[in-house]
Amino acid sequence: MQLFYSSRIENSRIILNEEETRHAISVLRKVPGDVLHVIDGKGNLFKALINKVNKKETELEIQETKTYPKPEKEIHLVVAPTKNMDRMEWLLEKSIEIGLSSLSFIRCEHSERKQVNMERLEKIALAACKQSLTWHFPELNDIVPFKNYLQSVHPMQGFIAVCKDAESVLNKQTSLKEQVHLMIGPEGDFTEDEYMLAKSAGWIGLSLGNKRLRTETAALAGVVGLNFL
Amino acid sequence: MQLFYSSRIENSRIILNEEETRHAISVLRKVPGDVLHVIDGKGNLFKALINKVNKKETELEIQETKTYPKPEKEIHLVVAPTKNMDRMEWLLEKSIEIGLSSLSFIRCEHSERKQVNMERLEKIALAACKQSLTWHFPELNDIVPFKNYLQSVHPMQGFIAVCKDAESVLNKQTSLKEQVHLMIGPEGDFTEDEYMLAKSAGWIGLSLGNKRLRTETAALAGVVGLNFL
Repeated sequence: MQLFYSSRIENSRIILNEEETRHAISVLRKVPGDVLHVIDGKGNLFKALINKVNKKETELEIQETKTYPKPEKEIHLVVAPTKNMDRMEWLLEKSIEIGLSSLSFIRCEHSERKQVNMERLEKIALAACKQSLTWHFPELNDIVPFKNYLQSVHPMQGFIAVCKDAESVLNKQTSLKEQVHLMIGPEGDFTEDEYMLAKSAGWIGLSLGNKRLRTETAALAGVVGLNFL
Repeated sequence: MQLFYSSRIENSRIILNEEETRHAISVLRKVPGDVLHVIDGKGNLFKALINKVNKKETELEIQETKTYPKPEKEIHLVVAPTKNMDRMEWLLEKSIEIGLSSLSFIRCEHSERKQVNMERLEKIALAACKQSLTWHFPELNDIVPFKNYLQSVHPMQGFIAVCKDAESVLNKQTSLKEQVHLMIGPEGDFTEDEYMLAKSAGWIGLSLGNKRLRTETAALAGVVGLNFL
């Protein structure tokens, strides 16, 4: 099923933007009268008829609406992005396929990467959502300093991934709440100060096993583990 | 910890091949008397002293040996490789980081890719093993037709990933044996015939959830899930 995305849906009318129009009309050669499947990223899947087309936009008329409930589990991933952005891009793609509610970036003491290109990440996220039939788009949050993040977010259950001396290990016995945050440090790991700060803010040290995982592998393994457990 | 690999270990003597020698001597400027950490891929980590060096090989004398037990769980992944080989290469890297005992390739009815470059994959595997501190190297098996694979392997517990009508779902309730095989189909999925053939050979249809996962994502999610559960 080929999906299109629109943020402009009012009553029974959908407007596709220029990029989606180009794909539907120029690439796939759709014409007025054809039916498209459109998602809004908020749980709705519309079957809609093409009404009018011009170069800039496509207007459709909704025929049917199917609404999907939000996933029962909320998984919030918080990552210090790697120097090599490719690794973050695949993490984004893969974690959306698997399922997560939000991805937030943090800047830590040992972070080599200080910023991320949100526009590019949003495009990758949209493609991954369409490909994997993700009806509820995850929230993407631009990079903020670690301390600011800690001050602004108060998770129901927050885990901070650590390599040693973890209080908790992710396995079958882990008791998970319905909203879980998982924080993954940079390639040089969290500093001792950062770790203590997170702990004093209620975050729990979590081990993902005894292998030495790259940042993006740890993050993805966490997302998969939290989904299955 | 920087690791070197050798397949030539006899008594207390280790020989590094030309490539490992180049890395140790030309790149890292190690000299006789220096200590290297060497692995054999069979669970042993050696601390060894450089004795003699020439262009083709390095001879070391073992000082200490540490032997790691095999992981308790054996996870065998069987995959119909994707057309885009990059996706298989990252699957290999990531699944080694997470942990698996073997990766075998199969050629299915809907497979677009008929062969894989084993030499290249073995290099990637070696790098991933070193990076992730994987003491027991996984076995890599070249591509064989699906039917031949089914005839030659009789798993203790074999799952075949399917998108719908699965008999089993991977979650906290799944009861796993200590040796598990997981088979993942090509981009066009298994044919009905292939699925029935696997079922009659004792394989169990397994759902990895209700998302539409790419081949490599399904495979990796399976490996992570089997490790955590």
